[in-house]
Amino acid sequence: MGNAYLSGLDRNRANYAPLTPISFLFRSADVFPHKTSVVYNDLRQTWAETAERCRRMASALRKRGIGKNDTVSVMLPNIPAMFEAHFGVPMAGAVLNTLNTRLDADAIAFMLDHGESKVLLTDREYSKIVAKALPMMTGPKPLVIDVDDASFTGGVFVGEIEYEAFLAEGDPSFEPEPLADEWDAISLNYTSGTTGNPKGVVYHHRGAYLNAINNIVGWGMPPHSVYLWTLPMFHCNGWCFPWTMAANAGVNVCLRRVDPKLIFALMREHQVTHYCGAPIVHGLLINADPADQAGLDHKVEALVAGAAPPAAIIEGMEKLGVAITHVYGLTETYGPASVCAKQKEWESESLAKRAELNARQGVRSLLQEGIDVLDLTHFQPVPHDGQTMGEIVFRGNIVMKGYLKNERATQESFAGGWYRTGDLAVIEPDGYIKIKDRSKDIIISGGENISSIEVEDVLYRHKDVLAAAVVATPDEKWGEVPCAFLELREGATPTQEEFLEHCRAHLARFKVPKIFIFGPLPKTSTGKIQKFILREKARSAEAIG
Amino acid sequence: MGNAYLSGLDRNRANYAPLTPISFLFRSADVFPHKTSVVYNDLRQTWAETAERCRRMASALRKRGIGKNDTVSVMLPNIPAMFEAHFGVPMAGAVLNTLNTRLDADAIAFMLDHGESKVLLTDREYSKIVAKALPMMTGPKPLVIDVDDASFTGGVFVGEIEYEAFLAEGDPSFEPEPLADEWDAISLNYTSGTTGNPKGVVYHHRGAYLNAINNIVGWGMPPHSVYLWTLPMFHCNGWCFPWTMAANAGVNVCLRRVDPKLIFALMREHQVTHYCGAPIVHGLLINADPADQAGLDHKVEALVAGAAPPAAIIEGMEKLGVAITHVYGLTETYGPASVCAKQKEWESESLAKRAELNARQGVRSLLQEGIDVLDLTHFQPVPHDGQTMGEIVFRGNIVMKGYLKNERATQESFAGGWYRTGDLAVIEPDGYIKIKDRSKDIIISGGENISSIEVEDVLYRHKDVLAAAVVATPDEKWGEVPCAFLELREGATPTQEEFLEHCRAHLARFKVPKIFIFGPLPKTSTGKIQKFILREKARSAEAIG
Repeated sequence: MGNAYLSGLDRNRANYAPLTPISFLFRSADVFPHKTSVVYNDLRQTWAETAERCRRMASALRKRGIGKNDTVSVMLPNIPAMFEAHFGVPMAGAVLNTLNTRLDADAIAFMLDHGESKVLLTDREYSKIVAKALPMMTGPKPLVIDVDDASFTGGVFVGEIEYEAFLAEGDPSFEPEPLADEWDAISLNYTSGTTGNPKGVVYHHRGAYLNAINNIVGWGMPPHSVYLWTLPMFHCNGWCFPWTMAANAGVNVCLRRVDPKLIFALMREHQVTHYCGAPIVHGLLINADPADQAGLDHKVEALVAGAAPPAAIIEGMEKLGVAITHVYGLTETYGPASVCAKQKEWESESLAKRAELNARQGVRSLLQEGIDVLDLTHFQPVPHDGQTMGEIVFRGNIVMKGYLKNERATQESFAGGWYRTGDLAVIEPDGYIKIKDRSKDIIISGGENISSIEVEDVLYRHKDVLAAAVVATPDEKWGEVPCAFLELREGATPTQEEFLEHCRAHLARFKVPKIFIFGPLPKTSTGKIQKFILREKARSAEAIG
Repeated sequence: MGNAYLSGLDRNRANYAPLTPISFLFRSADVFPHKTSVVYNDLRQTWAETAERCRRMASALRKRGIGKNDTVSVMLPNIPAMFEAHFGVPMAGAVLNTLNTRLDADAIAFMLDHGESKVLLTDREYSKIVAKALPMMTGPKPLVIDVDDASFTGGVFVGEIEYEAFLAEGDPSFEPEPLADEWDAISLNYTSGTTGNPKGVVYHHRGAYLNAINNIVGWGMPPHSVYLWTLPMFHCNGWCFPWTMAANAGVNVCLRRVDPKLIFALMREHQVTHYCGAPIVHGLLINADPADQAGLDHKVEALVAGAAPPAAIIEGMEKLGVAITHVYGLTETYGPASVCAKQKEWESESLAKRAELNARQGVRSLLQEGIDVLDLTHFQPVPHDGQTMGEIVFRGNIVMKGYLKNERATQESFAGGWYRTGDLAVIEPDGYIKIKDRSKDIIISGGENISSIEVEDVLYRHKDVLAAAVVATPDEKWGEVPCAFLELREGATPTQEEFLEHCRAHLARFKVPKIFIFGPLPKTSTGKIQKFILREKARSAEAIG
């Protein structure tokens, strides 16, 4: 019989369509044309209008010769143009590269070069950095388009054309050709680069589609939710929520910066139902002026990622009427790909116990195929004993295509048929994963990854430094901050302030250590610096400035 | 640059997994092992238990030599074994063929032969039909397994082994090999056969996965919903809700037959949140004894398909606290693939107007790629004018692979790059599709399709019949019933009762015409019977019996 199912039942245009999240935009524009899609200050867009603007963007890009597998970079806050780029760019067949707006000119120049960006959309606020980065590029310069957001008055224009004028060049009824392959690249997201240069993580249409839906199903988002853009869209494409909100036919409440007073005002005005952020964002809301907090009388759901939410955050948010869910993932897994799924039994536990339970990285997301913890010697699943440590690995459709122009790193990360996170964890008896350490010594500050190696490299450049080691130390506001330990050359007498200046000159501000401690570094017999000792020391040190 | 995105970024075991709904079962068993999966009379199963039983079934099938692309048929009501078959069978690599339990022995024998069934699971209730069908088969007989449901005491065993004994042969920790291709067949659903023999519609794992998720996202089902099995699982795999409920980690409330008293009792006891059915099911609930209806004080969502819900149904259900959503589709589109998505503006309309709006076939489902109405001459989209008629067509991932062993019908149905439904419709100015006629003269009775041609064939077999034509006539209880027009041979004087007996002997009971009218049939000059005239006549006729 086997043969009967194997012949005459092939794919064709009628029964197979490559998965792409662009489909969600068109459906919302067709089915809910007059529903609000985007809110920003006084601006209101409908799904029909947003789709038309995205079609214009795709058409205008095409007219400028941008197409299949060309990179389009954006250096934008969470404003409507940023949302539109998530559809207009892939609709042209191009690949969207969202740049971390907190990076310095060196990093931006590196990324524009490495990704061979053909176009850069930028905002007045970053004109200084962009103006500095462009001449640092070694390759061809991109076409620079200025997005003129009236709500930001500083900065200058650094491009050739303004965004609205660019859109006007496009055809509002542009019809993209059907996607050739759902495996085609849709976006390029640079990691912070834990060992050397940042790596360019490539997402595909299939993964973007499935992750968008995963956000809805996994989180239980009702249709037409109201989503507040506290999470930067440059982080893993805002964990793919631009595509989620198109599928949801919901409202995107845009936000230029994370300001608690404004956030509460927007929550009340638009009856925001959902938002995401690092613990620091939630912390800001908890510690906000009670007058600003007042009047939030509807239920809000929030995702927290980047670090486990401490009990104080869970409790504080509960008091505000916000239910927090902890998720975990990496740039390589389209942002969160595991969730600390809540169990009914937890509801009756004490706050401390609930915080402990919710602080775990949890279980695989519904549309992710697998997560496990594999022991470091034999790469076999660890027992669910809460004791045996191994490396967290992911497998499935919500895992990157690989690193752009970096086959070695790609192959290393996929060795063994799993994506290797580098994070060390145990599995507890209930099957929930709990991180114990980060094998790559990443410092997570305000939701941003900081590579200790990058900071150490800068410190090593200082003439007086003999040895440098940077570790994370807990910080109430930022979650973690970098703490630097410096072994100086004999006779050298630099001050903390001098190192602060040195770092500020070479690093993005958020990467600058908040503490500098001088003295000999503890080393193993083979000369390896013992960071675990330094982490202990760092805990009792005091931040400067 | 193009090249950079095209090399070193290939699929591998870590970043690509074929989509299959079996994945949902394993996740629910892993993450919510102790949550209730299935409720049936006094039986309660957890997701861990259900998964274990499905693994046993797959393992037992394998031990009997059943594997890749073998057909496993089931003739079962909506009992736990039916739910389990939706996972156990595909987990073995086999294809699930759910038989319509209302069919007669001829049809069952045809399907078992055509699908080359290797195994048949059956229930006492259908032992007569099955015992009659098996000897009628021309090909090899399947292994017959009796499901001994204690709540049905009639019937006999017709198989070689009882279901629980069969499961006991299987390994509860059976690990299925990874699915080779998401395009692999997962199920086989026979249509009622509008022109001659039934056609075997083949679904694939990818479509089953996406449709399962589509049900959740499209309907806005919250996690852990409680689903009542009023819709037969033999209809398009219960529109794929077995897989939906595994993804949802919800509760399946099983139900042997549609009995209003029992339905209301189950709704109250288990706090049912969702169910599906043809209008007749909803009608039964509305017309139920008020004493049975009492005490339903939570919100229930219902989907209705098979026919547009009349105003009386919408109003009646609203009074009971049930919100109805109208969906439309065919066996070839995994059941409903369009939805009459509700617009906020409709809420303030009169009941009559709302009924009119909700009676439409609507717009494409979220995860279906496209729906359109194409004119019959040039196969171009009709204008959205509510006037121009064309054929409804679907395109996307929620469209069958094709018809088993019927390349000609497959090719015809996909001609032009769309799946052609055969249903004639217009598109209204708001983009919603509204059916005007059924080009294939299908009669839909109680949610079941009846081919007028099949009934006519039986009538033609009667010695006194010169010409026969069967059309649908509206019926308060069944939606539509068949009405037969008969031109008799000269001198013949048979009675209505005689034809009733004749039809009952050759047709499943639901296909038997409720009205017989004698007289010359109106014909065109070329001798074609003018059914539109007969439909008018049928409206004023009275049903017998």
